[in-house]
This record gives sequence, structure tokens and C-alpha cells, in this order.
Amino acid sequence: MSKIIRVNMSNLTVTEEAVPQKYAAFGGRAMTSAIVADEVEPTSHPLGKYNKLVFAPGLLTGTTAANSGRLSVGAKSPLTGGIKESNAGGTSSQKLARLGIKALIIEGQAAEGKYYTVKVTKDGVTIEEENQVVGKGNYEAVKALSARYGEKVGVILAGPAGEMKLASANISVKDPEGNLRSAGRGGLGAVMGSKGVKAIIIDDADAPGVTIANPDAFKEAARVFAKGLMDHPVTGQGLPTYGTNVLVNIINEAGGLPTKNFRTGRFDGANKISGETMYDTIVARGGKPTHGCHAGCIIRCSQHYYDKDGNYKTSGFEYETIWGFGANCCVEDLDDIAEIDWHCDDIGIDTIETAVAAGVAMDAEVVKFGDSKGLVNLVKEIGTGSALGRIIGNGSVFTGKAFGITRVPAVKGQGLPAYDPRNVKGVGLTYATSPMGGDHTAGYSVATNILKVGGYVNPLGKEGQIELSRNLQIATAAVDSTGLCLFIAFCVLDNAEAFQAVVDMINAEYGLSLTGDDVTELGKTILRIEKDFNKRAGFTNEDDRLPEFFDEDVCAPHNTKWDFTDEEVDEVLNF
Amino acid sequence: MSKIIRVNMSNLTVTEEAVPQKYAAFGGRAMTSAIVADEVEPTSHPLGKYNKLVFAPGLLTGTTAANSGRLSVGAKSPLTGGIKESNAGGTSSQKLARLGIKALIIEGQAAEGKYYTVKVTKDGVTIEEENQVVGKGNYEAVKALSARYGEKVGVILAGPAGEMKLASANISVKDPEGNLRSAGRGGLGAVMGSKGVKAIIIDDADAPGVTIANPDAFKEAARVFAKGLMDHPVTGQGLPTYGTNVLVNIINEAGGLPTKNFRTGRFDGANKISGETMYDTIVARGGKPTHGCHAGCIIRCSQHYYDKDGNYKTSGFEYETIWGFGANCCVEDLDDIAEIDWHCDDIGIDTIETAVAAGVAMDAEVVKFGDSKGLVNLVKEIGTGSALGRIIGNGSVFTGKAFGITRVPAVKGQGLPAYDPRNVKGVGLTYATSPMGGDHTAGYSVATNILKVGGYVNPLGKEGQIELSRNLQIATAAVDSTGLCLFIAFCVLDNAEAFQAVVDMINAEYGLSLTGDDVTELGKTILRIEKDFNKRAGFTNEDDRLPEFFDEDVCAPHNTKWDFTDEEVDEVLNF
Repeated sequence: MSKIIRVNMSNLTVTEEAVPQKYAAFGGRAMTSAIVADEVEPTSHPLGKYNKLVFAPGLLTGTTAANSGRLSVGAKSPLTGGIKESNAGGTSSQKLARLGIKALIIEGQAAEGKYYTVKVTKDGVTIEEENQVVGKGNYEAVKALSARYGEKVGVILAGPAGEMKLASANISVKDPEGNLRSAGRGGLGAVMGSKGVKAIIIDDADAPGVTIANPDAFKEAARVFAKGLMDHPVTGQGLPTYGTNVLVNIINEAGGLPTKNFRTGRFDGANKISGETMYDTIVARGGKPTHGCHAGCIIRCSQHYYDKDGNYKTSGFEYETIWGFGANCCVEDLDDIAEIDWHCDDIGIDTIETAVAAGVAMDAEVVKFGDSKGLVNLVKEIGTGSALGRIIGNGSVFTGKAFGITRVPAVKGQGLPAYDPRNVKGVGLTYATSPMGGDHTAGYSVATNILKVGGYVNPLGKEGQIELSRNLQIATAAVDSTGLCLFIAFCVLDNAEAFQAVVDMINAEYGLSLTGDDVTELGKTILRIEKDFNKRAGFTNEDDRLPEFFDEDVCAPHNTKWDFTDEEVDEVLNF
Repeated sequence: MSKIIRVNMSNLTVTEEAVPQKYAAFGGRAMTSAIVADEVEPTSHPLGKYNKLVFAPGLLTGTTAANSGRLSVGAKSPLTGGIKESNAGGTSSQKLARLGIKALIIEGQAAEGKYYTVKVTKDGVTIEEENQVVGKGNYEAVKALSARYGEKVGVILAGPAGEMKLASANISVKDPEGNLRSAGRGGLGAVMGSKGVKAIIIDDADAPGVTIANPDAFKEAARVFAKGLMDHPVTGQGLPTYGTNVLVNIINEAGGLPTKNFRTGRFDGANKISGETMYDTIVARGGKPTHGCHAGCIIRCSQHYYDKDGNYKTSGFEYETIWGFGANCCVEDLDDIAEIDWHCDDIGIDTIETAVAAGVAMDAEVVKFGDSKGLVNLVKEIGTGSALGRIIGNGSVFTGKAFGITRVPAVKGQGLPAYDPRNVKGVGLTYATSPMGGDHTAGYSVATNILKVGGYVNPLGKEGQIELSRNLQIATAAVDSTGLCLFIAFCVLDNAEAFQAVVDMINAEYGLSLTGDDVTELGKTILRIEKDFNKRAGFTNEDDRLPEFFDEDVCAPHNTKWDFTDEEVDEVLNF
């Protein structure tokens, strides 16, 4: 019953095909990266008709496995020029899985200026010209589309930024409460916009659902897995209480919180934007301190942040966003950062890339560091399509070039997230070498460097970091293929039983007998596919480098520099 | 007596050193590329302190050889990210040569926001803080500096665009009449600006001059060479009469004049902007139809274009500029194009890159195709430092990305000049493969494809084009090392005696016994140095590709596509 659906936007046709044998064990990132690598000419223009945009639920998506509802999106990235997978929560992934759709491929390109809504149901796929929500903010669009197609449908959106083909445009996915989750990084929203696809509706009414080969074994493994998540201090306590923003105080204390466009690792105003402060604020205003981004999430790291008047302001208010527009821009006002987060979601733009771009723009004195109202206006500018908005909306490297700023924390064109690589060196190796560009999620060494999950590697030293980044990148590529939230890694790194339960769930669903080694091999396979695509696109080892200022400028409080040699960096993914 | 001078802008010190033996036979481009390749870390930021900006007169500069006064400027390019040499006329090169300076290297970086004027005399080099002309247009700056240091001094300027570190910023050089010549391509003005060098003054009062080992032989060879130039129809008649703009009608007739952002090869308004019309206009208004950009030029392809009121408007009004803001933007008003040329010179920005960027911006409807007043305003915007100005001023690829336009005619980040590669295929191979990025001067196959100089190779066919582009790129690298104007190639390609005279002049000056083969070997050596730098910077064969729309879109009037395979393209510089 599993199938791949192709939507050709050049001639507005839809075809279905069986999943080829070579993709049988693929889901999520494995599926998107394999299809992109097999079908997209690596040198083609990312916004041209030869790029393809691939949506894929994970191997476990659509089942009762906890936290298994992530949606992978893949394409050649307009931000990095390389292969990209970005994943998000929301309701669409589980609906695709229940419809038996292993991949939805958008290819070709609609006529200039035309937009369409692609509707996926159990009866097939239709393509309808879209006029109502083009040019509208995402919050309005998701409401209008839900009203049109039914409140229960899944909605996937290219926002105004995607329509403008900005290189930081994200893809937004409706969550269980009708708000927005983002496949944030790498500009995939611009690819969606370039195809002329404004929205994708997933209606799983009367869908066949997911078949489980061995239901009893699945149920038992799912129970062990869920118990593991609940029992682990990070996934059972830290994240549910404070959300990802629990990290502000932790990373600040560790001296790894990039401040003032990556000048130091400590921010004086950290406490004002911390998870603890945020929790108190949410509770005091009657917001929701914890909720899940998709059905079946038991970590529930998201929240509803309310404004001073007690009204909903934003959700999925992440550490990365709060760090980026906070410490990185020297802004201490959590309400202003929430306002910015809302605008980013509404415009459909990646908060990390936009925050890093804003820090660079502040170095050019477009807005002063610490000017939170100026920062709000700068982000709103993106939605207007003004020249300044287009500069910021094209990301950190673009902004640096526009203003002649050389202090641009980015790798492969993608701005670096919320951990200074000089003071959390394992993640620096991930930034440098991930085929995705500067990305923390690709191999979150912070877990072991700072949180002491999966052991401990001194964040300031070099010893053990190469192996740490390598192993985490391999494991992450595998996790990203399951549809499981990456945060389950905190648990499975420490709990061998929970790790085995993930393997057992896959085996029980598909009637397989994979081992842990097979999972490692899957991760390696994915990374090889991605590295090969990038190589064919023209990438070399010289693209696996941090910007030179990290080698030069000493970072307080540990007075460190980036000190890995090129040869050492090249060892990370040398397998 | 020959020396290399280093100016370190980080600590404001100057050192002199003898020319090392390995550079003894180098001048011009050979010298700048060798120094950049030897001393600049290829992955360093082009606007950072590790880049170096190198000025070098050619091997024959400072002698009485006709047309030998070109100045080479080299660095890692902020536009392409690769090695760059750009050369210009003006008076500075001959003054450097007469001072015995084979290379002037600017290294390091001044403190943020500080600008300096570097003054070079026979007594050495001084560095003076510059306040007067910072932020001023080039026309005003060159006047003020000439008034301060003496009318006879050479002046080299980073204009407002260079101060803003825009990737299309040129370096301007004062010409014999106090107007401006440009080392246009690749953003070298931004490198100069990033160093904190606003101006370089070359005062050759009481300079020792150039020593000629064998004066009689030199004199005879110089005579033969000059006679060759005068006798050739292109260098003796076409260029002196109509300037480079003689090409508008020729290339339009050949169907190779890129029109409306490279949509077709013919422009309906060609006659209104042609060299013939320009000549008549200049004569009718009392301008100068012909003059030289440096002392000793006998081709004299430049001119003084006057406005309707009979006042000087611009000089060095080139075919490329007129094509770019004319046919490429569907503009037919030569006076408006002259106005734009003046602004580009005054702001210090490359006319080709800016014109290609403007064509791309017109595809985004920033200004409508054909709106000549809108185009004037768009170019003036660059000088204001506005966000829109910074977008356009960062070139064609940047502009395409800003506005989500995929039709961007550029290679290695550099906009393509005035010959459609589909209809003049030899130059298409040069665009694709030159280490300089999309550049016609690097191997001007137009000469043989269209002007039937040096034989004839059918511009629409593939046969013979690979060898043509290769041989011309080799010859050009050598010519660019002599200080001779590239236009002498029209003559020496047809006239073996004139070619030998160039070799004889070099031998007579330096007491050498080079052969024609040695000159070829010099050209190959330079290209190898440049390709190796780019490789170390992370370039691969995938960077040697034309944009995909040339493979797709049929170009009128010959209904051609770009049809060289990647393997064929890779043969061009495979030696």
C-alpha cells in the first residue's frame, strides 16, 4: 500500500508509484535525502524547475510510538547550495503516514506568478489554483485553509517569505491547536514558493492507517520506549517544565551562550530571558507552560507564551529563537522576543538564520545592539518585501555581504546556532562538517559536552570531540529517519533499553530483524548520500571550515579560540 | 633597482624588498597572481586582514613601447571568491615603473572606520590619515588629491562603493586628463576599502626611470610594433574612430548582443546606441571622439562624450557599458547611459557588473525594462548606501538572490559581459572556464568568432572553439603581464612580425632571449597559478559552468542553445 506521489507543477499532473525496493527501509531524512540525491542535478538552481521538494514521514510515523510525528522536508537548499533536510512537528506527517504515503515529491515549476494548493486525500491528489491566501500571513492563512478544508486537515504552508523566495524562508506546518511549527532551516520555504505551491492540505479521513507486522511486540517496545522518555531527567523533567529554553541559564553558565554576534559566551541579561523566567511569566499570565507539537508527544517541550494582557502570543518559543534575538542581539525583553517569534512564524522565516542575520546587521549598525524595538521593526521589515527586508531575509552571509561585515558566524552559508564553537567544541565540529551547513541538530555534542548525556567530553578540550561529533551525526541521521523527535536521543544515549526499544519498534512494524549496528549503518549511508550530493554540487573540504574569526578572537569567559586543524576537522566524517 | 614595497595597514608600516628571483620575469598579471597565490590563504575572507591587494605595472610599462601603460591589480575577489586580476589605464602604472616598483602590496587592515592615503615617491612611502576625501565621489576626490599633491601625480582611488565594501566596487585610476579609468571587475575596490586605503598617490618626480638593456634593439622593435598597430584595421581604424562601441552594430548584426537580460541576441534600438551614432553625437557637440587612456597609447579608443549642452559628461565610455545599460536593459537613450556611466565612475563601481545586476533587477520589476530614467535613479541609489543600493552594488548574483530571480547570467559570481554565449560560443567557453569568472577579456574569442582576427571559427558551431578559447586565454595571460593594452592582440594575432616585436621589446629591455614559446609558457604558468589558487579556495570543475538557462532557452535570431558538455568545457584549460 505504501506509495510515492509526484506532483508536477510544470504541467499540473500527479502520478503515483510504488516505493522502489532500494527505498524500502527509508523514511524521513533517509527518504528525502535519497530522492534528492537520486533525482536532483546537484548543480541545478535551487529555485529552478530542476530542484525537487520532498516531504516524508518517518519510519515510525503514524504509529502509537511516542514522539514519532516529525515530518522531514528535503531539497537542494537555496541557503547553502547543498542538500538539505529540515524537520518539523505538526499534524501533517502522521496524516501522510496513515494515507500510506512514504514521500510526496513536488517537482517542476508553475507558471510565473501562479500559486496552487495541493490537496492530498485517500482518493488521490488534486491541484487547485490558490488566490485567497497568497500574500497572507501564515496565521491568517492556516485559519482560512482550515475553514475551507476542515479543521482536522493537515496544512503545510509557504509563507510570505517563501513566496518572496527568500533563502531563510521556512515551511510551516499546522500543529494540533492550529498554530504553526516550522521546518526552519535552509530556505525550503523558498523552494516551495518557487514551485508555485502555496499550501498542501493533508486530509486523512478514512485513511487506511499504518500496518504493524507484529502488534504485540510493537506495543511492548513502545511501552519501554515511552517509559524511558518519562524516566530521563532531560526528557521527563527539564524539557517538559521549561521547554528548550531551559538551556539559556545552562549554556550561559557554561560560557557557551554566543553574545553580541558571537563576541563572548556570557550574556549579562541571561536571567531575564531564561526558561525559568519564561515559565514564571507564562504561569503568571495564564498561558500553557507545556504542550506537544504533535499528537503522541510526551516530552511536551512547547508552550503557549501569553502577552502582558493575557492573550496568546506565540508557541514553540524555542531556546534558539530566544538566544538569537536575545543574547546574540543583546536584547533582554522576552516580550519583544516573543513578538519577533510571532512575526517570524507569520512571515514564515527561520528564526535562527534571521537572528544571526540580525546580529550581523547590528554589527553594521543597521539597528543598535540591545535595541529591542528596533529589532522588532527589522524583522517586520522582512514581511514588507522591502530591500532591507530582503537582505535580512536572505540570511546571515547575505546580510554580511550587503553591509561589508566580515564577522559572519556561518558555515556553508548557514548561520550558526546558539552554542559558541570555541567553548562547546564538539558542536563546532558538527557545524563545520555537517552536510547541512552550520547546524546544531545534526550532531548535538552539547548533550555530552554540557549536559553530560551519553557520557562526558570536556567542552573546552579537543580530546574525544571528533569521535563524539561523528557518532552523534551518524545517530542523528538515523533518528531523523524514524520520524522520532531528536530529543529522544537524550534518553536513548543514556538508556540502552530505550535505544533497543526503538530498534524493536521498527522491527515490529516492518517485520524486520535489524540490529543496533544496522541503525548505525543507516546513519552512515545517509551521510554518505548527502556528502556525495554536496561533492557533486561542487563542495570540497574547504567548505567544512568555521569562519576565520573563531581562530582569531578570544572568547570569554574561557578565553578560548577554535583550535582544530583542517586535518582534524576532515577526520570527523571520514568513514 | 627593482623592488617590491609592502604597506602594512594593521600597523601602518612600510617595508621594501628586492624582487625575488622567482618573480624576475613577471610583471602585471603574472606578478599580482603569483604574489596573491603565494601569500594569501585561499580560504581567507576577501575583506579580511589576510587578503592582500597587489598593484603591478607590466614588464614593458615605463618604456616607450606603444600602449604599455596598463596597471594590474590583484587580490582574492569579494565577488567571485577566487583569484582576480583587473587592469586599467591611467598614469599610475608608468609612474610606478619609473620608480622601479615592480609590485606594491597592501596588506593587513586599518582600524575600523579609519582611512589613509598612501603616498609613493622616489624617497619611499608614507601613510597619512585621510579625512578630506572620504565619502566623496571620485571626480571630486581626484581633483582634491591632485590639488593637494600636485597635478602631475598619479592617483589610485577606492570610491564610495569601495568604502562601502560592495562586491562590484572598482578601483579608479586618474588618467592623463584628470578623469577616471577603472580596474573594474571583481570588486577590488572593496578590498582597497577594507584595508582602509582611500587613495594611493604616485609621485614619480626625479624617478630613476626604466633601464633598457639594449636600447637600439628596443627602439627598432618598438617601431615595428607601433607600425603594426597603426596598420591593422581594428587597432588603426575601427577603435580609434568609434571606440570599443564600434561593436554594438557588429555584435547586433551577428545576433550576439544580449538583450533584455540575455533573452535575445538582437536589440531593436541598437542603432541609437551604436558607435556610429555616438561618434556623430560627440562631433556635433564638440566632444573628443578619440583619445588615449594613458601616455603612449596610439589606439586611442577612448573619447570625451559631451552632453546636450556641450559639456563634458564622461570618458572611457565603453561598448560594455553601453551594451549593459542599453540593450541588456532595453534602454535606447545614449545620454542617459552616459549619465549612468558618469555615476558609476563617480561612485567607483564596475559598469558591467552593475548593468548585469540592473538587468536582473528589471526581471524582478524593480525598474521596468526600457525605463531609462528609472535606471539612472537605480544606479544613483548605489551611492546613497541604501539597502537597495547595496543589493545592486553587490552584483548580479546577489541581486538575483535578493529578488528570487533565477535568470542570472553569471559564472563564479561574476556577471557575463556583452556577448551571448549561445551565439558567440568561443567566448562562452572563456566565461565558463576563466579563473577570473565570467569575463570576456580573459580570452576574447569574439575576435576570431566575429571579427575574423587570427583566423575564423564559426561562432555558432562547436568546432575549434575549445582550442580557440584555450589559446586566447594563454595569450591573454601573457599580454596582461606585459602592461600592454589587450587590444594589441587584434594586431599581433594577425601579424607575426608585430608579435615578434613584443617578444623583442621584452628581450631588449631585460637582456633576455625569450622566444614565442616562452611567452606561451608564461601564459600557461599564470593560468596554472590562478587555477591552483581557486582549487585551494574550494573551486571545482562544477564552478566552470554557465547558468542552466543557457542550456534551456533558445536565443534569437539563431535559435541556439548552449550545447557544450561538461566534459568538453573541462578540456579548455586542461593542460
